[in-house]
Amino acid sequence: MKISVLGTGAVGRAVAGRLDDLGHDVTMATRDPAATAGRDDHVDWAAAHPGVRLAAFGEAAAGADLLVNALGGDIALGVLAEIGGDLAGRVLLDLSNPLDHSQGFPPRLFVKDDDSLAEQLQRAHPDTLVVKTLNTMNNAVMVDPASLGEDTTVFVSGDDEAAKTIVTALLRELGHTDVIDLGGLETARGPEMFLALWVRTAVALGGSDFNIKVVRGPSLQS
Amino acid sequence: MKISVLGTGAVGRAVAGRLDDLGHDVTMATRDPAATAGRDDHVDWAAAHPGVRLAAFGEAAAGADLLVNALGGDIALGVLAEIGGDLAGRVLLDLSNPLDHSQGFPPRLFVKDDDSLAEQLQRAHPDTLVVKTLNTMNNAVMVDPASLGEDTTVFVSGDDEAAKTIVTALLRELGHTDVIDLGGLETARGPEMFLALWVRTAVALGGSDFNIKVVRGPSLQS
Repeated sequence: MKISVLGTGAVGRAVAGRLDDLGHDVTMATRDPAATAGRDDHVDWAAAHPGVRLAAFGEAAAGADLLVNALGGDIALGVLAEIGGDLAGRVLLDLSNPLDHSQGFPPRLFVKDDDSLAEQLQRAHPDTLVVKTLNTMNNAVMVDPASLGEDTTVFVSGDDEAAKTIVTALLRELGHTDVIDLGGLETARGPEMFLALWVRTAVALGGSDFNIKVVRGPSLQS
Repeated sequence: MKISVLGTGAVGRAVAGRLDDLGHDVTMATRDPAATAGRDDHVDWAAAHPGVRLAAFGEAAAGADLLVNALGGDIALGVLAEIGGDLAGRVLLDLSNPLDHSQGFPPRLFVKDDDSLAEQLQRAHPDTLVVKTLNTMNNAVMVDPASLGEDTTVFVSGDDEAAKTIVTALLRELGHTDVIDLGGLETARGPEMFLALWVRTAVALGGSDFNIKVVRGPSLQS
């Protein structure tokens, strides 16, 4: 699959690198490819992933079957607005979180409860097929959940069933075995608000190398 | 231990009944004991738990070593205000959730992100030792997590270490094996905001007979 990963930070690198390893045709999208190519943290990573191209946002979006929003939640709306029409008709796997770091740690959420970042992105781009997933774990667990040594859970939310099917297949390729389809994109409010518990759990455990598993009781086991 | 359970709804009955079965000296607290005693849903339950007394809120609080807030989140502040001074110095296990059902389903939260219901209760009763826990699962799982057939996780938040130790011991009596101490009471914002994911997961699974397990990766296993 031709996949463009929006964002060249730690999350973007983790996702792009793993999708490259899995044999996908991966482009990393950034505002200024030349500047990104010269960044210290990108040089080492790129050397290990020579198959991943670097392109400007619009060009990367135009050629992709699937887009991954690995941008910081606070800049995602702005970047997608720049891309504009090239987003129409495409599946957008949104793994970003609406974190507001302006009040210090732990971060707050700049949208929650009666709305979500996923819904904001969808409203801004009504012809894009937004699927929320993966935002409930760190980037290493996102791309290699098997590293935890035990099956854990990932959630998907979205209004388009075909888009969710595509994303779910990709999640299974990454190693996710328990994919809970929460329903329409409104349900993204749940995984996004979970971040408030995720960040505090990470502090309590002294690291973010964890994920949650939804353990079903007898009445929910088929 | 002398335990008074505030609230006579389904959650209060589940908690009081199980603590009674475990051999604790349990009182259920209500505004009008005579009215509660005559309620259909209470009569059957009380017949199965003859050892559980019914008392007015103030009387029940005054004699207890530990109080359990099993009131609806929307009325908890008001009821605790009625009890007033009898709460001073006591441990209050708060398992309520700040659910706002006024906009329909799924419920929203009437406090979140920069505050929590647990912190509101603590500010209103600064001499009470509030410990948030158990609010992340249904009442059947709260009192018998072993019914799920697999170890799962419960969180505790509170500013008083001795109070958390008492509550944690009680959680272990109920069968909770993985108790994560998130830290001070501020951390209750995490488990309370988790409700947004919990309720949507319950819809997706078609029932609430589940709990989450925090699965640690190799770097977090001691």
